Amino acid sequence: MAQIIDDLNWRYATKTFDPEKKVSKEDLEILLEALRLTPSSFGLQPWGFVVVETQEILDQLVPVSWNQQQVAQASQTFVLCRKESVDEAYVDSYIADLCQKRGMKVEDMSGFSQVIKNFLSKYSEESLINWMSDQIYIALGQLITVAATMKIDACPMEGFDSDAYDKILGLKEKGLRSVVVCPVGYRASDDKYATLTKIRWELDDVVVRI
Amino acid sequence: MAQIIDDLNWRYATKTFDPEKKVSKEDLEILLEALRLTPSSFGLQPWGFVVVETQEILDQLVPVSWNQQQVAQASQTFVLCRKESVDEAYVDSYIADLCQKRGMKVEDMSGFSQVIKNFLSKYSEESLINWMSDQIYIALGQLITVAATMKIDACPMEGFDSDAYDKILGLKEKGLRSVVVCPVGYRASDDKYATLTKIRWELDDVVVRI
Repeated sequence: MAQIIDDLNWRYATKTFDPEKKVSKEDLEILLEALRLTPSSFGLQPWGFVVVETQEILDQLVPVSWNQQQVAQASQTFVLCRKESVDEAYVDSYIADLCQKRGMKVEDMSGFSQVIKNFLSKYSEESLINWMSDQIYIALGQLITVAATMKIDACPMEGFDSDAYDKILGLKEKGLRSVVVCPVGYRASDDKYATLTKIRWELDDVVVRI
Repeated sequence: MAQIIDDLNWRYATKTFDPEKKVSKEDLEILLEALRLTPSSFGLQPWGFVVVETQEILDQLVPVSWNQQQVAQASQTFVLCRKESVDEAYVDSYIADLCQKRGMKVEDMSGFSQVIKNFLSKYSEESLINWMSDQIYIALGQLITVAATMKIDACPMEGFDSDAYDKILGLKEKGLRSVVVCPVGYRASDDKYATLTKIRWELDDVVVRI
C-alpha cells in the first residue's frame, strides 16, 4: 500500500527491548525535534519532554511502572509531560515569542492573546488539565509514528504512577507533570510479542463515510 | 536533519485549502488505514473515524465550526470520534476479536479481560470520556504525521460545536461522539499562513535530559 503503512504495521508495543542496542545521538535528536514540532491548540505547546537515559534513574522507575521492565531496558525512556498550569503570564510569553519570531508588535496580537485568555478562563482547573493532556497525546502519536518510520521501537505506556514519576524525576520543580511514558529502543530478538497478529477492528468497523 | 523533520516543518495548520485539489482515493485509503492502525490503551480502540466529503454536509459544518471555511473547502474533513461508552460487553467483543485473530480460546484471555474491566470500573464516566479522548488524540497525531509524509495538508481543529456535529452527522445513532476535527487536502496557493515562521519553543526550553 505504502511504506508508511508498512512502518505502522511493523511497529508494536515492544515489551522486551535489547538493552545492548542504543538509539544513536543523531536519531535521538530527530525524535526530540519531532516532539518539539508537534502542533497544539492555539500553538500553546503546554508541555515538556523528559528523556531519561541514566540507568540508575531508569531502574527506579520500574517499580512505579507496574514492574514493566521495558522502562529500564529501553535505550531511552521518554516521559511526556504537561505544564503544571497554563496561565495568563504563559500566554503572554507565547505571544512575545510569536511576535519576536515573526517580527510583529505585541500590541498587534492583543486580539489573539485575548481570545486565548478568554478560552482558557472558561475552563475549570480539571478541564484545563484534560485539555493539556490531549495536546500531549498528539505528541505521543507523532513520536510513535516518527519512530516507526525510523524503525525505532517504542512502547507507549499509561500504566505508571504519575506522582512517583514526578517525584523521582523532580518534575514539580520544573513546573511539569508526567502524562504518558514511552520507552524507545530496539526490540529484543526473543520478544514474543513482535510476531503476534496485530489486533485492530476492520476498516468498515471503524470508518464512517458521509 | 532527516526527511521526516522536513515533512513536519513543511506542514502547518492550513487555513485555506484549494477546493479544486482532491486527495486521491488511494491516498485517502492510506490515511484511513493509518488511523485504523493507531495504538491505544489495552488495544481497546475506543473510536470511530468519520470522513465527510459530501459538499452539502460539509457546508452545514461551517457555521458550527466558528465559521472556519476550511471545513468545507478541504478535500475531506475527518471527524475523529470516541465511542459513546466502553462497557464490559465492548471489552468482551474486543477479547473475542483478539482470540479469533490469534487462534486462542476466550477462556485463556479471561485474566487480561478482567484486568481491563477492573481498570475501566475504577473510572467515573467523565474520567472514561477523558481517557477515550486521549486515545483519539494519539490517532490525530498519527494522522497529522502520516499526512505530512504524503505532502497532504491538514488543519487539526478543536474549535467546533461537538453536539452540533454529532447531530448533523447522526453520530449518536452510531454510538459515537465527535472529539476533534481535521480537514485534509491541499493548501491554496494564496494561503498566507503557509509562509509564516513556525512558532515553537527552542529544544532546550521543552526538553529535559536526565
